[in-house]
Formats: sequence, structure tokens, C-alpha cells
Amino acid sequence: MHSAISMNKTEILDAALNEFSEGYFGLSDENRRTLLISLSKEYDLNRTQLRELMKQYLELELRTGDKDVDIVHEEEGSFSAFYRIERNLRHSLKPMYEILFERLNTHPGGLRFLSTMRADILSLLMEENLAPLRALDSYLKEKLITWLSPANLQLHNITWDDPASLLEKIVAYEAVHPISNLLDLKRRLGVGRRCFGYLHPAIPGEPLIFIEVALMKNVAQTIQEVLWDDPPIAESEATCALFYSISSTQPGLSGVNLGKFLIKRVIDVVRKDMPKISTFATLSPIPGYIQWLLSKLASAERSTSTFREMLLKPEEENALLDATKELASGKNGMEVMRNVLSTHHEWVNSTSLREALQIPLTRLCARYLFLEKKRGKALDSVGNFHLQNGAMIGRINWMADRSEKGLKQSAGIMVNYIYKVENIEENAQSYFSKGQIQASSDVMAYIEVIIFHQRTSVVNMICTSLPY
Amino acid sequence: MHSAISMNKTEILDAALNEFSEGYFGLSDENRRTLLISLSKEYDLNRTQLRELMKQYLELELRTGDKDVDIVHEEEGSFSAFYRIERNLRHSLKPMYEILFERLNTHPGGLRFLSTMRADILSLLMEENLAPLRALDSYLKEKLITWLSPANLQLHNITWDDPASLLEKIVAYEAVHPISNLLDLKRRLGVGRRCFGYLHPAIPGEPLIFIEVALMKNVAQTIQEVLWDDPPIAESEATCALFYSISSTQPGLSGVNLGKFLIKRVIDVVRKDMPKISTFATLSPIPGYIQWLLSKLASAERSTSTFREMLLKPEEENALLDATKELASGKNGMEVMRNVLSTHHEWVNSTSLREALQIPLTRLCARYLFLEKKRGKALDSVGNFHLQNGAMIGRINWMADRSEKGLKQSAGIMVNYIYKVENIEENAQSYFSKGQIQASSDVMAYIEVIIFHQRTSVVNMICTSLPY
Repeated sequence: MHSAISMNKTEILDAALNEFSEGYFGLSDENRRTLLISLSKEYDLNRTQLRELMKQYLELELRTGDKDVDIVHEEEGSFSAFYRIERNLRHSLKPMYEILFERLNTHPGGLRFLSTMRADILSLLMEENLAPLRALDSYLKEKLITWLSPANLQLHNITWDDPASLLEKIVAYEAVHPISNLLDLKRRLGVGRRCFGYLHPAIPGEPLIFIEVALMKNVAQTIQEVLWDDPPIAESEATCALFYSISSTQPGLSGVNLGKFLIKRVIDVVRKDMPKISTFATLSPIPGYIQWLLSKLASAERSTSTFREMLLKPEEENALLDATKELASGKNGMEVMRNVLSTHHEWVNSTSLREALQIPLTRLCARYLFLEKKRGKALDSVGNFHLQNGAMIGRINWMADRSEKGLKQSAGIMVNYIYKVENIEENAQSYFSKGQIQASSDVMAYIEVIIFHQRTSVVNMICTSLPY
Repeated sequence: MHSAISMNKTEILDAALNEFSEGYFGLSDENRRTLLISLSKEYDLNRTQLRELMKQYLELELRTGDKDVDIVHEEEGSFSAFYRIERNLRHSLKPMYEILFERLNTHPGGLRFLSTMRADILSLLMEENLAPLRALDSYLKEKLITWLSPANLQLHNITWDDPASLLEKIVAYEAVHPISNLLDLKRRLGVGRRCFGYLHPAIPGEPLIFIEVALMKNVAQTIQEVLWDDPPIAESEATCALFYSISSTQPGLSGVNLGKFLIKRVIDVVRKDMPKISTFATLSPIPGYIQWLLSKLASAERSTSTFREMLLKPEEENALLDATKELASGKNGMEVMRNVLSTHHEWVNSTSLREALQIPLTRLCARYLFLEKKRGKALDSVGNFHLQNGAMIGRINWMADRSEKGLKQSAGIMVNYIYKVENIEENAQSYFSKGQIQASSDVMAYIEVIIFHQRTSVVNMICTSLPY
């Protein structure tokens, strides 16, 4: 195995690349680990050379003076020297494993192999977070981003006429709303539906990512409307294109944001094709909501400070306590809520509980989506994805996905993100640079209530804790 | 115009990119020059930041000791610091114009635009060889090489059934043997012929490069056999695939060696398709031969030293002087030869002159192809192209191309380069690393004569110049 890599350093033999990639697939997890770690450590930079170049560069700097502005006006000679060392520096900052990556990229099947290798690196990193492995991963990711630039990808309208081998991939990789049978697949590719995928010439017959679209009269509020509206409306009546599922087929391409370009391309294609369609929206899951809410509730319960956060309004708490007399207990509304949400979704079958939970869960969901951040970006992964692509938060839909998964992730709530063609770039830009999230007035109404509510509690708490 | 570039620094607006590229096409040559020079100078590196990072890195080096080997075994912390600064260094070594290139690459029509821009940069460099412009060019070239990696290209078998808009491009860009009319084109795409092109998804309907192939019984010795063999042999009888023309359609992709990958792919496709074909060869022009020979002859004439090189053998010189009594004059064979070759190819119509020239011109051509180097690589550009792709010099063909261009470039001589599937990688490797050229025994026979001949002259000359 090691000889297969080292051959790659001196020979350009296709055979060696084949041998290497085939050999790799035959390795046990443990041997793959050994190989990847040795690749990351032993085929790294030549740091001696790098250091040498840096010293040369800094000396050159001293000789030609210290002002960048002047350098521009300097004579050809010293000018060229800067460019030359800079070029050499770029070169010497390339790790040796770059050679292997580059060669595999131009080798038949190599890109797919690199994607597999990256998936392995990612799962290794979950176990042990080693610096050289992290560097290997980030380098490979950069390379994949370059190679999979949208200019190299082909948008393909996937239909029932496509080869079964391709459709099989759609069934296998649909990650959001699993496809139950052939009829379900046929419906998703039939009248009133579209499915678009990005194909790369080097990975034929397998979309790297695909998106499912429903053509509708109005923005759907529940996933049931999308998956079970039989028969669908006539396409000529549609005014809305609803993106209800987006799935990536390559775990090794994690962090390579193909979805952004796919959505933009699909919007362009649909607008050109069906000028009557004026709304582009998603019906999206909120994968992190309940997990976040449960931990918020738990920490509020643990806290004995007077500053402890009141997640429920008094009237919400009362309604909840009334509705849960038999089902769950707890010393206050927040504990009851946590208990209700932690059990096996029995609350869904109780009309009174559903009614008692609707307002607080919707309100807290708006807060989660709009206010909760991690490093300046939306905490929710799906939210972050659409916001960075330029969408806004449109509407929060109660009881929109009653599947086991939907109830567990978000108490059945789903959200419509809206892509307004004229604002996409602007939204993406202000989210990217300032973390600013756009939301509809419906959603903002919940937020304003929260901000107001919090402000008054803070005032109360300050009053309480003053020493008189 | 400048505002269009500077917008690119802060916004991701497609509109700005469109405006920029459309605006560019509307510019005069002089304004394009101004724009490109300002792009190369004002959107360059941030050298202050780069210097800062280098200092940090070298300090880190001091703190953690001087031995690379030890660093590998060091603890996580300092390890991560190296990787972090290296990543930052890579980033800060990217000139600002990288942003523009990257954005244009993902923008519809952007890749074609970049190729136009590079063509402009190249022609500017022919006029004034400015260092920042050279750096801009070499950076853009590297980017294009990455984006146009063979993994992103599709091999297309171009046939008479292709759209006229694509075939039109073939006619327009065929650079080796111009296509005279529709019938000529149809023949080149008909029985016994193939034409393959590389298409990029971002430049649809226009191959970046294409190659024309003739299926033959034997390796053709003259281009007439290829272009006018009507009717062609039955394809089932073919044992040889002859590459008789390879043309690039994008001057902006100069230096991006797509031809190498195209030839390899075409060999693979033809072998799979027609297992009877065992020989892959070219019939290639020798664009630099006569120019080289004329300057050799001129410098031999000018030289008064006893070391002056004898380019003709005595018997060749006599035969030439006999044959040129009426047509050309000169004080010796070399001067006569130069005069004959400098005139308007009248010698081709004289049987005696053709006979007198055949041996020396063929012999000197073998020397030119096999021995004449520039920076360790074959001096002839077409030769260098095929040798770096792994071919060998097969046969030198007298009176192989009597067109005006053929006579001017190489006195009508053409050469067959042979691609032996089993040696391609090995040849490419030894040419790349050692400048070693492989040639058939036929060609080597001429070389041995030359080496022997030169050796004896040197011996003679040494004897002559010794002081006794």
C-alpha cells in the first residue's frame, strides 16, 4: 500500500493509481486509518524549503524598502523577484499529497474515489481529532470545491424516462422524505412535480445532489399536502414552486455547498419554463428545534437563580397545566412541557394538549430560528443552509409533519423559507457579512412578543434582586 | 469599468459580473490594456499581511525547535499552529484578482470570458513584457488548468449529424489542414474518418480542442493520401489510426495542454471500438525546421573559424552544386542550399534539385527533430507536444506536404510520431525528467551518421588547428 503511494511520487502510471484505489477499497477500517494518517503526516509540506523561501522573501523586502506602494513603481528587476518567490511559495505550500489528489482527479473513477476517501477522513476525525488529519481534510475539501465548481456540473431534469440505475440512486439517497415505493417515486417525477440533479462528467449516472420540487397554487403548509395530493393540480394553474426535499448523495462532499448553486439554477430554469410561477419557497424540517428546546427547558429548571429564564408566558403555563392533568406532571409549566415532549409523542393524540402547546411551541420555534446563533450564524443547520443561500424565514407551520421523525425533531413543525428572486443576493450578502436574518412580518410578530416579554421579565428580576 | 471590478470585491452580484464582461467586450484595445494592467497591479497581493504571517511562522519555528522530524511527533497544540499559519499563508498568497476569476468561473459565460481575457493578456505580453502582467497571466493559466482538468471535459465524437453551429466551429478553427468546402468537411466526418472534440459544460456547442483521425491500412506517408483517398478503405480493413490534425479553438488556453489528454482518451476509445487497430500514429508538420536550417546555414556561412560546422557531406554538396547550375548560385553548397530554400519553392518543380536535396534535407531534419533542444526539450513545438505526450519519432517523409505552408515550414517534409500504447507513460516520463527522445531505427540511422560525421569533422578540425 505504501509503495502504491510512493510510486505516485515518481511515475505517472495509471496502473499505480488503479492499484492504489482498488487496494484502498479492499482495506479494513483499521488499515485505512493507518494509511490516511501516514498520508497526512508523511506526505505533508517540505517545511525546510518553505522556511528558506520565506527568509529570501523577507530579505528581498529589506533590500527594496518597506513600502508596498513604492514597490509597484519600482523597476522590473526587483518586481520580478517578488513575483518569482511568491510563485515558489505557493508551490512549496502545497503538501505532497496534492500530487496524489491531482492525479486521482484526472484519473477515471478518481473523483469518486477521492469523495470516498474524504468520507473516511471525516468519520476518522469524529473519533480522533488529529491536527494533520484535519489539515488533510481541509486541503482535500478545498480541492473538491474547486473541481466541483458549478461550471463543471450539469443540471439534469430527472424524469421517469431516466435509466433505472439513476432513479435507483434517487430512492437510495432521498434523505428528507423517504420514498416508499415505485409509485411514490413515479408521482414525485410526474405531473406537477420536478426533480433536478447536478451531474459531474467524472461521476456519470449519479447526481451529486438533487432537489424535489412541487408546483402548487399556494405555498404548502404541511408535507402531507405535497406528498399525498392526488391528483395534483394542473401545471398551468401553479403559481408556486415548492422545494420540499434536497439530498446529497456523497457524504465525502460535506461542506462543499452544491445546494446553493443548485437552487439558484433551478429557480432560473423554472422561471424561464413557467413564467406564471412567481413564488419560490421551501417546506423545510427544523432538525435542531426540539433538542435545543429540551436543553433550554432543562437548564431553566436546574437554575435556581432569580435570573432564570421564563420560557412560557403565564397564560400559556396555565393552559398547559390544565391540559396535562392526567398525562404528565411537573412542578411548573416548563417541567411539564419537557416531560410531555420527552415522552413518545402521545400529546399529538390529545386535542387539548395540541391546543395548549401550539402557541408556545410556535413562538419558541420562531425564537429558535430567528434568534439562536452559533458563531454568528443560525443554529439550525437547515436554516443556516437556506439563509446563506439568500432565503428569508416565511411562515412557521404547526402540525406540518406528523411523521415519527418530524415529531421528534421539531414537534411536527415545519417552516417555509422564501426565495425572493430580487432579494437573494442581498439577503445572502447581509447574512454572510453581518449574520442578519430576514423574516416575514408573521414571524417577526412572534419575535417582537418575545423581545418585549423578555425585557419585562428582566425588569422584574432586577427589581426583585435589588437589596430592599 | 473600474467600479465594475471594485463592486466585485464586496458584492456577489451576477449583474455586476455581466456588466463587467459585457463592458469589457465593448472596450477598445487601448482601454483593455489599461484595465488589465490595473487589474494586475492594483488587485494584487496584500504583501503587508503576507510578511506578517511569514514572521509569525518563522518565530513559531524558533519556539518549537529546528528539526522537522521532531515537529511531527510534537504535541497537538504547536502542530495545529503550523497548519493554521500555513493555511493563512496559502490564503494571503492569493492575489485579489483571484476573487474575480473565481466568480467569473461560476458565472454563466464566465469561463469563455476568462479565456478571451487571457488571449488579450497574452497578446499584450508580446508587446510589453511587464512583470505584473506576467504574474497575472501565469496565475490565470494555473486556474484555467485546474478548471479545465480532463475530469471536467466530455469527449464527443463529432459527426455529420452534429448541429451546424458546432460543425461551423470545426471549419473555422481547423488550423493544420484548412477545410476547403462542405464536401471536404463531410469526408473528414465520413467513412474511415473520425473527429473527436473535448467539450466543457460551461462552453456548450464549441469543442475546446479537436483531433481528426484517419483509419488506414498503413501509416500514411503524405497528407495527400489522407485528404484525397477517395473512396477510403473499408473500416474493417483498417489497422492504423492516423492523427492528422489537432486544433485548439481557444487562443486563451495556450499552455493548457488539453491535447495530451485528448490523444490518450481517443486512443482508448478507438482501441475499445476497433480492436484490429494496433498502430496509433500522427502525420505531423515540422513547423520550425526550415527556419532553424536557414539560420544554421547563415551562421555557418558567416563563421570564418576553422570550427565552422559542415552541414553538408562532400558528396551531397557536389550533387547539389551540379543540380543548381542554372537556378541558384553561391560560393559553396551551404550557401547554395540557403539560396534555394529562400526562394519561392521553385526547386520543387525541378526533378534534379529535388533529388539532390532529398538526402541532406531528410538527414538534417532527423538531426533537427532528435538533437536540437531548447531548455532540454525538443526545439520543434509540434515535436515537443507529441514527445511530452509519450510518442516516439517514427519516420521522416519526403514530399509529404506540397502545400505552400508545408514547403515554407519544412520543405514539404512531414513526420510520423508513433504512439505505442505500452510505452506512452514510460516515454513521457523519460522525456519529462531527462529530455530523452525515443526514435525508430530508421531515424536513428540518420543520427548515427550525423554523430559520426560530426565527430570526424571535429577530429579534422582539431588537427587543422593544432600549431604544426
